[in-house]
Amino acid sequence: MIKIINDSPLYPIANPENIAFFGASNNFFSMGSNILQSIVDFGFEGDIYPVHPKEETVQGFKAYKDVMDLPIVPDLAVFVLPTRLICDVMEACGKKGIRHAVVVTAGFREVGGEGIALEAKLKNIAKKYGIVFVGPNCLGVVNTYKKLNTTFLKMEGNPGFIGLASQSGSLVTQMFNYLAQHGVGFSTAFSIGNAAVIDLVDCLEYLGACPDTKVIAMYVESIDRGRQFVEAARRISLRKPIVAYYVGGSEIGKKATFSHTGSLAGPDKLYDGIFRQSGVIRAHSITDLFDYARALGGLPLPRGRRVAIQTHSGGPGAAAADTCGRLGLELPKFPDETIEALSEFVPHTGSINNPVDITYSKNQTDFFIGIPKVLLSSNVVDMLLMYYLVPDSMLQGMLVRFGISEEDAQNGNLDVLNDYAALMVNMLKQYNKPIAGFTFRNLKEQFPQALMANGIPVFTSPEQSVRALNALVTYTQLRQKIQLQQV
Amino acid sequence: MIKIINDSPLYPIANPENIAFFGASNNFFSMGSNILQSIVDFGFEGDIYPVHPKEETVQGFKAYKDVMDLPIVPDLAVFVLPTRLICDVMEACGKKGIRHAVVVTAGFREVGGEGIALEAKLKNIAKKYGIVFVGPNCLGVVNTYKKLNTTFLKMEGNPGFIGLASQSGSLVTQMFNYLAQHGVGFSTAFSIGNAAVIDLVDCLEYLGACPDTKVIAMYVESIDRGRQFVEAARRISLRKPIVAYYVGGSEIGKKATFSHTGSLAGPDKLYDGIFRQSGVIRAHSITDLFDYARALGGLPLPRGRRVAIQTHSGGPGAAAADTCGRLGLELPKFPDETIEALSEFVPHTGSINNPVDITYSKNQTDFFIGIPKVLLSSNVVDMLLMYYLVPDSMLQGMLVRFGISEEDAQNGNLDVLNDYAALMVNMLKQYNKPIAGFTFRNLKEQFPQALMANGIPVFTSPEQSVRALNALVTYTQLRQKIQLQQV
Repeated sequence: MIKIINDSPLYPIANPENIAFFGASNNFFSMGSNILQSIVDFGFEGDIYPVHPKEETVQGFKAYKDVMDLPIVPDLAVFVLPTRLICDVMEACGKKGIRHAVVVTAGFREVGGEGIALEAKLKNIAKKYGIVFVGPNCLGVVNTYKKLNTTFLKMEGNPGFIGLASQSGSLVTQMFNYLAQHGVGFSTAFSIGNAAVIDLVDCLEYLGACPDTKVIAMYVESIDRGRQFVEAARRISLRKPIVAYYVGGSEIGKKATFSHTGSLAGPDKLYDGIFRQSGVIRAHSITDLFDYARALGGLPLPRGRRVAIQTHSGGPGAAAADTCGRLGLELPKFPDETIEALSEFVPHTGSINNPVDITYSKNQTDFFIGIPKVLLSSNVVDMLLMYYLVPDSMLQGMLVRFGISEEDAQNGNLDVLNDYAALMVNMLKQYNKPIAGFTFRNLKEQFPQALMANGIPVFTSPEQSVRALNALVTYTQLRQKIQLQQV
Repeated sequence: MIKIINDSPLYPIANPENIAFFGASNNFFSMGSNILQSIVDFGFEGDIYPVHPKEETVQGFKAYKDVMDLPIVPDLAVFVLPTRLICDVMEACGKKGIRHAVVVTAGFREVGGEGIALEAKLKNIAKKYGIVFVGPNCLGVVNTYKKLNTTFLKMEGNPGFIGLASQSGSLVTQMFNYLAQHGVGFSTAFSIGNAAVIDLVDCLEYLGACPDTKVIAMYVESIDRGRQFVEAARRISLRKPIVAYYVGGSEIGKKATFSHTGSLAGPDKLYDGIFRQSGVIRAHSITDLFDYARALGGLPLPRGRRVAIQTHSGGPGAAAADTCGRLGLELPKFPDETIEALSEFVPHTGSINNPVDITYSKNQTDFFIGIPKVLLSSNVVDMLLMYYLVPDSMLQGMLVRFGISEEDAQNGNLDVLNDYAALMVNMLKQYNKPIAGFTFRNLKEQFPQALMANGIPVFTSPEQSVRALNALVTYTQLRQKIQLQQV
């Protein structure tokens, strides 16, 4: 049990002051060179010591022929060498006094046969020297607050609040762009690969103690230390939500995870039980995993399961309502005073039932400010879900037809949208109730970007948005259950 | 039963040569003005006759004080007037000899009370004069090949192969941008609103006969003419796939659809049965509806349910495999000759099982051409699903580090990506097997756009892509079943 993050064996791996790098060269097409470039591109501030048998310099850094030649004992060694060299280099690092490593190289347990024996040998060498390492067959670690990125892809976007522990490297790298599109980012992300030494439980403990991490996401192919997982997750989930996506559920999925990291997946129901006991919210797809994480990390928890849906369009509103029904969320009937307050804003062709459907409105301020205020201040509403047509092009087009220049119209429009977004973010704070949006337009547009940058998640379908709100309710319930059991 | 599209009562509505327009003015903020602007913006080539009690001209068109003043009898009348005026104007149109209309105006059956009587009155007037109309409470019709758009949103993107019949107007307008992002588009889309006269079955018949429509999508809140629906759908689905999203399944969903279009939704299972009997593929979300449509409209049908998954990243590959398992798709074991051919391209750290996981490869050509060729030519493979990291930034970054200018690198990179996309499209034709891709990056990037513009659908999650491939299998099965029943 880790109380302070510095106690974690992962701390020096995620927060090294300097790095010895094995496997980079001046050939820009090699994976090692790409990884070194990622570290440099992200602006890592510590010293980097490439070790290379022949080169004098590697990508501008002074290179060393042998680890023994290094002027210091670096905090971390990163290995991107051919498989056959790894054991010898690990041994040399041990002799040098290095105690933390990331082994990116693959070709171990996951390939079967000799790979299994090789991984055992590697573990033994590490054990002999007390070396803690992430991998093999992984992409290592990204700590956005320490500007560290040991993956081969350039970091995109900003530091954020999502901590990730993943048995898939791509769930780290491929998500840089995805999270940036959604206005969120990683705090620290671990790709653990075959998990020879550092496993999911270690990452969970680290992220639980990490002050930059507000929510923990996990991509799980198998949990080997079941008891420790449940114990750690129950403890951590009391103060930090944990979401997990488990991929080995089907027979085919099992086989695929085995050839990926050599993991032995268990039956789907077993994992359902483990997660429920542990207070872990289960996601059923990769997108759900991150959708839930951004809702859980950005929004306050709801007091209940009652959702007010606001729309200007019946179909998407009905689809959201139907999904609420399927997931057990409620659409409260509004009391008289709420209906009265709403009727000021909703034309007679619209609906002041729930979903509130404004249909077509000339006044965007009613839609983005007036109605949300009424709904959020109602004591039968625990959460607000809004469908909106991003009014970019409409508003702008109208201004142009009024004789305003294209450029002025665009700027004026952006100002208006930014104002709406700012007012909605204020409402989030004022009422302390979850607000989420959905749209079918591209999330790169101005309005969703302004909302998402300030903690209001926007989704690309009614179903996704409702599932994310439901994750908030699930977390509240799971946590209450654990709290009750502890009394 | 409609054999030729011109026989449909909808033909003059979707293909008018000229339009009488009621409800546009020179006030650009009114909905009527916006709709007229949409028609103009899209480049409608016929004549437009605005009717306005006071104005001499409306948005540059000569205006007429009364429908009786019109110099001709237009093919179509579009009404965007206040509710209370509609019946009188419909009567006047009838007297003028107009026989087709779109009633955008709301405030009828869906608001209950007097609205119900008003709708009945409107129907009677139309019946008296033999007027066929779409609506009320709708957005009418978009025929991209006739440059007709009676919705209030500007059309985006290109004409395409998706026919839509929708009980929600937003499923027309909000999808312009969505479909354009995905490289597809509508052929003709109908928003039928309260369906006082023209209903889902009429639209189905029209789209079934429409030569520009390769696949029919439906957004359903209730089916009133059940027997006719089943009969028409069974007949049409033999040569054209039909996908439907039914939203009234849950209790909450039912209430929402009632206040939307006054529809009475039935139990979920009933609709399951109706769709299955009719050869209609059921989608369970709005995004699935259009995902299935673009797969069904763009890809050949698979001979079986065997999927080869190709990835450079274990996690997304495993997630896709797991979804295949859950949906009953098979991941075939490759025969020796396929494994031998693959081993040329896959490093020892990768996997030549299914999913084929190339892990990290220096040679993109192997990934985009070499491996797909082997898989598509294998007789155990019916469909190919590829996960890819769009190599934009990586490839470009490497070129820049080689000293090539940013601009040249970008252009060179675009050329390479376009070449890959073109070669993949060739493979689609050559092997006549479905190919689909998925990525977590934004679909606006170059490579997915090039693929999608040429019929290879790209999805934003493994689950979506597998569900879409499964829709192809479902269609094949439903069609076979109907064929057998007819023997």
